[in-house]
Amino acid sequence: MTDGWSSALLTDQYELTMVQGALHSGAAHRRTVFEMFARRLPETRRYGVVAGTGRFLEALERFRFDPEALDYLSRAGIVDDLTLKWLADYRFSGDIWGYAEGDCYFPGSPILVVEGTFAEAVILETLALSVYNHDCAIASAASRMVTAAGERPLIEMGSRRTHEMAAVAAARAAHLAGFATTSNLEAGRRYGVPTAGTSAHSFTLLHDSERHAFSAQLEALGNGTTLLVDTYDVVRAVNCGIELAGTELGGVRIDSGDLGPLAERVRRLLDEQGAADTRIVVTGDLDEYAIQALAIAPVDGYGVGTALVTGSGTPTASLVYKLVARAHGDDPAEPLAPVAKRSVGKPSRGGRKWGVRRFDDDGTASTELVYDHEPELGPLDRPLLRRLVAGGEIVGREPLSEARERHARAVKELPMAAQRMSRGEPAIPTSFEQRVNA
Amino acid sequence: MTDGWSSALLTDQYELTMVQGALHSGAAHRRTVFEMFARRLPETRRYGVVAGTGRFLEALERFRFDPEALDYLSRAGIVDDLTLKWLADYRFSGDIWGYAEGDCYFPGSPILVVEGTFAEAVILETLALSVYNHDCAIASAASRMVTAAGERPLIEMGSRRTHEMAAVAAARAAHLAGFATTSNLEAGRRYGVPTAGTSAHSFTLLHDSERHAFSAQLEALGNGTTLLVDTYDVVRAVNCGIELAGTELGGVRIDSGDLGPLAERVRRLLDEQGAADTRIVVTGDLDEYAIQALAIAPVDGYGVGTALVTGSGTPTASLVYKLVARAHGDDPAEPLAPVAKRSVGKPSRGGRKWGVRRFDDDGTASTELVYDHEPELGPLDRPLLRRLVAGGEIVGREPLSEARERHARAVKELPMAAQRMSRGEPAIPTSFEQRVNA
Repeated sequence: MTDGWSSALLTDQYELTMVQGALHSGAAHRRTVFEMFARRLPETRRYGVVAGTGRFLEALERFRFDPEALDYLSRAGIVDDLTLKWLADYRFSGDIWGYAEGDCYFPGSPILVVEGTFAEAVILETLALSVYNHDCAIASAASRMVTAAGERPLIEMGSRRTHEMAAVAAARAAHLAGFATTSNLEAGRRYGVPTAGTSAHSFTLLHDSERHAFSAQLEALGNGTTLLVDTYDVVRAVNCGIELAGTELGGVRIDSGDLGPLAERVRRLLDEQGAADTRIVVTGDLDEYAIQALAIAPVDGYGVGTALVTGSGTPTASLVYKLVARAHGDDPAEPLAPVAKRSVGKPSRGGRKWGVRRFDDDGTASTELVYDHEPELGPLDRPLLRRLVAGGEIVGREPLSEARERHARAVKELPMAAQRMSRGEPAIPTSFEQRVNA
Repeated sequence: MTDGWSSALLTDQYELTMVQGALHSGAAHRRTVFEMFARRLPETRRYGVVAGTGRFLEALERFRFDPEALDYLSRAGIVDDLTLKWLADYRFSGDIWGYAEGDCYFPGSPILVVEGTFAEAVILETLALSVYNHDCAIASAASRMVTAAGERPLIEMGSRRTHEMAAVAAARAAHLAGFATTSNLEAGRRYGVPTAGTSAHSFTLLHDSERHAFSAQLEALGNGTTLLVDTYDVVRAVNCGIELAGTELGGVRIDSGDLGPLAERVRRLLDEQGAADTRIVVTGDLDEYAIQALAIAPVDGYGVGTALVTGSGTPTASLVYKLVARAHGDDPAEPLAPVAKRSVGKPSRGGRKWGVRRFDDDGTASTELVYDHEPELGPLDRPLLRRLVAGGEIVGREPLSEARERHARAVKELPMAAQRMSRGEPAIPTSFEQRVNA
């Protein structure tokens, strides 16, 4: 759908003017380390979910200033000719490490570590943050909904409530976090997310009667389809569906009203008529709390829209991308010096970090360790950074299914507190481990 | 950047399965009217801002099922061959009216009216809602920030806090609503939004000293540039900037701390040294309330990020797209019958609507009139729907600057209450005008 596109202008202007400034001062080629991390989690999150890695690597590959982009930058007078020339040749040539997609993160976790010259690393800031801030926010909300839903499948159906391309990424992030399916077809095509959806109220209203609409749908999509039963009267609609499709009717969907009591009533109605296998799907402004409240209702699946794509109150993950170390000159042997802005109330720690998760004997995660030096791992420690880019070459690609499986495992490893819907502290504490005599 | 792309799969699966069902029942070709409207405004909005029209028309033009899309739909078994054939030939051939981009809207305002066969009109639902729900939410938040800022210019700089493509649309929506500039380069290239941005903390930290960094920036970008002065010590940084650039220094930016008192102090410092024309720009987690609170501070411009791109608490506009009328058969002379879902607490009014804004003698808007029939206009009435698509041909394109100017006028026409930052009722009431004996 977007073959041949360049991601290079999905960037704040100041990244390019900083490159220009640093080319003039000569500091552009100093070796640097930039890190992406969250200073804190939102109050309603016990853990964050790393998402966007696959999309970032795809966008990195397309981060090229093509003639059209260069022409714009030149015409608009945004950078000078020296900088344009540098941009025309731009290829990221450094190394990138990151937390594996689907893993959990905590305050201070270095979920992305970018090593390269200042110019080549700073220029990725906006794009990297856009991708991760969006996708992590959605996946972190989705993961809680998956917890609330227990064994029942979730359908992502929020495309209409967010930007049309954000919708595709949201469907991907939700699937990664455990949603079963999405309504979004482009997410199906592009990322292989299983898709779902049958009909809306307009389909019933279009026809001369509900019966007419149901017959048309059953004929076109088969008896296994899901009928939307709340356009006029739910009981009448369910009875009509069973009359037409028999006990083979795949499912009914309730999109409005008191979902719990309605589901009870519909379940009784279906069971009385022998349609014990007909599933009840509920939709309509659900969030993790509403899902949890429906745990005792006879519901077989949930559709979630607005709350999912808006991150259930937290539409962005507040990840930052900071310079944490740099060389003083061009000597490749010189060790990098840690740097940090002087900040009140904003803990910024200089120096490259290593993230490690420590486990108890029973396999439960106990601490997120963030080292400012390469640590020696204990037997119950898991290193969290894996190589995504080596010498400019992307080496961290993986199928979305791997991230999905990893996420399911990562959540299972957390203490029970991680599953709480209430506000509170991160599920495990972060411990910053400084080198002795550093 | 995305030439040749198709928007057709940015769609919920059920739109296509409904087409399949209606092709089977024969109802697919019934003439219909779909309308987009908001049932209510968020509590913190006195008016909504129509935004996304230009982007929707662009996406409509690209709404074609190309071989790649058809191949996916076929392989995934989403629709049958009859439907695939219909999709392959799909071109919207109907008429679309809409509120002009940049105009205000209120509960019930029919901001988009789509007339066509069921199949050709229903299939646009998801895409239209995605575009408008995002863009209207951002523009509606932006407009309040513009009010709060008064004559002072606003810079949009939220790209890193939202999906990378949503960022481009957000920059466009913010400019439409009155923001002066954006940091987003793709919004500059694609929509001609003026861009801004000079440097971040990493640029200062990269260099051996702040003085070194400032010299580099001044040399590369000229004395008119804006220096970021809060990396270490604001007073020292401002003094250093003046020492290096003299009184020609374009501006200084403060991104953290107590912005009001800091701005006061920096203004005194600059004035004492004769740099009366050096501007002070403040950034750092600003929203409309923080902007308003800084009204008495000596600030020359505001940069807004997170709050803008997340719609300042309301990231989506809750617009819906509903079937409101349809024919019973294929007779083109038959009048369309109004339809509406039976809903408790969700006012859905059947029949095609006409929106009209009524003004007082002094030119202040007094009422939003929503007619279910073509109204006779009084001398102080302004019809709000303009033709965007005629017989499938897009006729409603206009430069973004026109929408921007229209928005400035539309806000000025509203009663003073529209400018309040507090929670409350819409600035003008909506009156639904039914045909007598309808």
